[in-house]
Amino acid sequence: MKKDSSAATRPQNDTVEYLLRLGDDRLVLGHRTSEWCGHAPILEEDIALANVALDLVGQANLLLSAAATAENAGRDADALAFLRDGMDYRNAHIVELPNGDFAFTIARQFLFSVFSMVQSDALQRSTHVDLAGIAAKMFKETRYHVRHSGEWLLKLGDGTDESHRRVQNAIDALWRYTGELFLGDDVERRVAQQGIGVDPSSLQPAWAAQAGDVLSRAGITTPDVAWMQRGGRVGKHTEHLGHLLAEMQTLQRQHPGASW
Amino acid sequence: MKKDSSAATRPQNDTVEYLLRLGDDRLVLGHRTSEWCGHAPILEEDIALANVALDLVGQANLLLSAAATAENAGRDADALAFLRDGMDYRNAHIVELPNGDFAFTIARQFLFSVFSMVQSDALQRSTHVDLAGIAAKMFKETRYHVRHSGEWLLKLGDGTDESHRRVQNAIDALWRYTGELFLGDDVERRVAQQGIGVDPSSLQPAWAAQAGDVLSRAGITTPDVAWMQRGGRVGKHTEHLGHLLAEMQTLQRQHPGASW
Repeated sequence: MKKDSSAATRPQNDTVEYLLRLGDDRLVLGHRTSEWCGHAPILEEDIALANVALDLVGQANLLLSAAATAENAGRDADALAFLRDGMDYRNAHIVELPNGDFAFTIARQFLFSVFSMVQSDALQRSTHVDLAGIAAKMFKETRYHVRHSGEWLLKLGDGTDESHRRVQNAIDALWRYTGELFLGDDVERRVAQQGIGVDPSSLQPAWAAQAGDVLSRAGITTPDVAWMQRGGRVGKHTEHLGHLLAEMQTLQRQHPGASW
Repeated sequence: MKKDSSAATRPQNDTVEYLLRLGDDRLVLGHRTSEWCGHAPILEEDIALANVALDLVGQANLLLSAAATAENAGRDADALAFLRDGMDYRNAHIVELPNGDFAFTIARQFLFSVFSMVQSDALQRSTHVDLAGIAAKMFKETRYHVRHSGEWLLKLGDGTDESHRRVQNAIDALWRYTGELFLGDDVERRVAQQGIGVDPSSLQPAWAAQAGDVLSRAGITTPDVAWMQRGGRVGKHTEHLGHLLAEMQTLQRQHPGASW
């Protein structure tokens, strides 16, 4: 897809745009999490992370299918996942950052999962029937992700000096990426008014309370950050997304439709 | 672990040796399958392969835990998975071969899954209570793997000229690795006599009938192979296992016990 043609394919429809944001967050984080497949140093943890990755890719598949239906332009979930350019991706930056070490992976998983939990809880009341159903599934799955990553945070925060240092570093590095999750723009305000979506700025207090509780019990301090990273929701991404998409899209772009 | 020390750590106990063979087949194939995570060109298929990989690693975890218990030498399933050298692995060669293309991956999955299905069916009657329980779980999961890979085989065999050619090539290349699954040596004959295990040579007719049925419906011919590859059960492996272990064991060997 060339740059000048992609403007034409950008969703004009608020519902499509909103569903892409929801789906892309989970597709990209699911792909990042799946990079651990077969690499975690503990079999049980390998299995746990693979389960989380599976849940996220499954959620993305449902959300992108709903986006494709709402778009009604002949593209399916696979076309949305594998044939868009980076500038057409709508995920927040926090999910596209490389995995880093295990502490970073867990800290990012925790911060995003708490966000996803409060978001999907609210979305269960969406007037968009498909989205309400997907949200109920997400809420159930994400509560497990919060528990899993939260338990690790406590273990690492309360573990050795080294584990504490690593997880504190991870939170310090990730914090300036959390603001974007709650920005809320005209698209989100309009879908919220229609009862389809939820304005993410309304989710911030619940997120801060729930994430803060675990972090403080883990002995982790949250940094004072004045400037928050942003841009993902309108297609401005870090260079990391390009590398991730190159890897994720290789096969589909080599064999469009994978028809053989 | 140096070469001269590994002889001492090799299991002398038939039950340990047998459980390692069962566990290593699934650990190595699970790792191979997980290499597809995030790389399949279709979201649904990415999810399906990740589920298969998860099942296999989960089965390996149970089998290696049982091996560790039977060995009673202070090693747990993670130590068995991550701290053995290639020559101490007991998997058949067929599971360590690189994934190749999608047709090869599916063909290997199918040939091994049918073997695993008839094997775990028989092992449900093991006098080793833990193994009988694990076998019941494996049998249930593996029936799904057979169905999944079998449906793909039919689709690819009956698809385009290109897909047919690829899946026929895959079966041609894999066939000489199937014999090792049914070899049966003194270890397996002794565990079979004790009612703990099953002599794999007794499984060959059921495997040939079930695999052959799907292959013939897929229009795939099975090659005439006089010489069958062997050696995995006694620790003689292809060079591919070394590369796979290097990747799988990196983290654990860098951070033994992963204690931070």
